[in-house]
Amino acid sequence: MSESQTYVLTLAYNGTNFAGFARQKDARVTTVQGELETALATVLRLPEPPQTVCAGRTDAGVHALGQVVSFDLDDPTAVALIDSDTRQVLRSLGALTPESMSILELSPAPSGFSARFDAVSREYRYRIVNRPAPPVFNAAFAWHVPQALDLEAMREAAGFLIGEHDFCSFCLAASATEDKNTVRTLSTLDITTEESLGEPLLVIRCVGNAFLHNMVRSIVGTLVEVGHGKRKPADLPDILAARDRQAAGQTAPAHGLVFHHVEWR
Amino acid sequence: MSESQTYVLTLAYNGTNFAGFARQKDARVTTVQGELETALATVLRLPEPPQTVCAGRTDAGVHALGQVVSFDLDDPTAVALIDSDTRQVLRSLGALTPESMSILELSPAPSGFSARFDAVSREYRYRIVNRPAPPVFNAAFAWHVPQALDLEAMREAAGFLIGEHDFCSFCLAASATEDKNTVRTLSTLDITTEESLGEPLLVIRCVGNAFLHNMVRSIVGTLVEVGHGKRKPADLPDILAARDRQAAGQTAPAHGLVFHHVEWR
Repeated sequence: MSESQTYVLTLAYNGTNFAGFARQKDARVTTVQGELETALATVLRLPEPPQTVCAGRTDAGVHALGQVVSFDLDDPTAVALIDSDTRQVLRSLGALTPESMSILELSPAPSGFSARFDAVSREYRYRIVNRPAPPVFNAAFAWHVPQALDLEAMREAAGFLIGEHDFCSFCLAASATEDKNTVRTLSTLDITTEESLGEPLLVIRCVGNAFLHNMVRSIVGTLVEVGHGKRKPADLPDILAARDRQAAGQTAPAHGLVFHHVEWR
Repeated sequence: MSESQTYVLTLAYNGTNFAGFARQKDARVTTVQGELETALATVLRLPEPPQTVCAGRTDAGVHALGQVVSFDLDDPTAVALIDSDTRQVLRSLGALTPESMSILELSPAPSGFSARFDAVSREYRYRIVNRPAPPVFNAAFAWHVPQALDLEAMREAAGFLIGEHDFCSFCLAASATEDKNTVRTLSTLDITTEESLGEPLLVIRCVGNAFLHNMVRSIVGTLVEVGHGKRKPADLPDILAARDRQAAGQTAPAHGLVFHHVEWR
C-alpha cells in the first residue's frame, strides 16, 4: 500500500495576465492553479493533476511574492522524482509554466499539512505611486494616485481597523452573504514609503489571520478617500458598524496588490 | 525680434517598446525622442517639432529614470504657455505620450544650456537577478543570471576599470572607428545588492564623464564572465590594452540597463 507524501511549494507570480489563482472550469482561462497543476502532472508523470490548496486565493490581476501551495502525492515514482533531484523538478516546472510565474521552493511537509488550514497569518502589501507623473517601472505593480494624499489622516484611519472587527463593510457584497462569519483580526495596517527602481512608493502593509474577499482592496480604497479628505479618520468606526459594503469606499485596483507572506501555526 | 528661451525636461521611460531614444527617419519607428518632440509640437502649438538634445542616448530596450532633454523655443506663445501653467503643460504632454514614458519636470534653463554638452557625469545602473528562479516583478528591468556569481572576483575586476582608460575594447566595433577618441573616465564601478518588490537584485553602478556605445553593457557582460570564473580579474588590464571589442566579454542584454542620473558642470 502506498503512503501519501505532502509537499509545499512556494511561488511568485505577476498576476497581470492571470484570471486569478483559482482553477476555473473553462480550461481556456489561464489561472495560476491551472498552470501549476498541469505542469506538476507533466513533470511528475501523473495520470491526473494533483489537487493543490493555497494559503491565499488571489483575484484576477493580483500578484504574489510568497504564495504557498500544498498537495499530496501517493504515487511513489513521483515522490522519488522529487526526492532524488528537487532542483531538476523545479527547473522542469519553470520550463513548463508561463514566464510570469516563478517557482521558488519545493519541499516535503509533515503529513496532512495544509497551506490553507495551517496558515495563521497572511500579509498583503498594496503599493501606490502618489505624485503627478505616472510611474514607468512600477506601473504594473502600483496604483497611480496623482492627487496628494494626507498620510497622517490615512494612518489615523488605519488605527481604527486594527484588532478584531466584523469587516462585513469591507467584503465583496456577494461573498459576505455566503461567508456568514465576517469577523477577522488585523494585527498590522501600516503605511510606509519605499523606493523601487528609483520611483517613490507608498506601501500599505496589511497582516491578519485571514481575509474576506476584496478586503484589502476595499480597505485601501477607503484609506485613499480619507487621504483625499473625502472621509474623516473618525468615520471608520461607523463604517465598520454599518456592516454594509456601501458604507466603505471604493475597491482599489487589483494591480497594486501583492500577496506577500504567510506565517504557520 | 523674439528671444529664444531654453528649457530642460526630465523624463523616465520603460525602454521595452521603444527603438531607443534617438528619432529615426522612418516615422513608423517608435522612439522616445520622436514621441516627445511630436507631443511638444502639439501641446505648444508649434508648426515644427522642437529639436531636442539628450544627456545620454539609450539603445533599443534600455530604460531611463532621469533622462534629461534640452531644447530652445523662439515662439513667444509657446514660452508663455509653459511659463503660465507648467503643470498643465506636463499633464498635456503626459496625455499625448505613451504610458511607458513619464515626464517628471520641465523648467527654464540659462540660455544656451545643452543637456548633452553641459553634462559632466552620467550614471547608469545595470540590474541582475542572480538565483535559479527567474524574477517575476523585475523581469522587464533585470537580467536573469541563474548560475552563481563570484561577487568578490567581479568587484576585483571592476577595480581595474576605474579611472581614465582607453575603453575601445568595450565599444561597439562599428562605433569605435567613427568615434576616434575612445578614452573615457570611470569614477565609480561598484556592485551592491538591493531588493525590489521583494526580489533580490545585484546593481552594477557605473558613473563616468561619458560613455561609448555599448560600453556599460559590454563591461557588465565581461564582469559576469569573471563572476562565472571564465575570466580572471587580472585579465582586465590585458582586455583594455587590446583595444579590440573581441578581447572583452559578451554584451549584456539591453533590458537590465537604466540611464539613471546626470550631473552638470
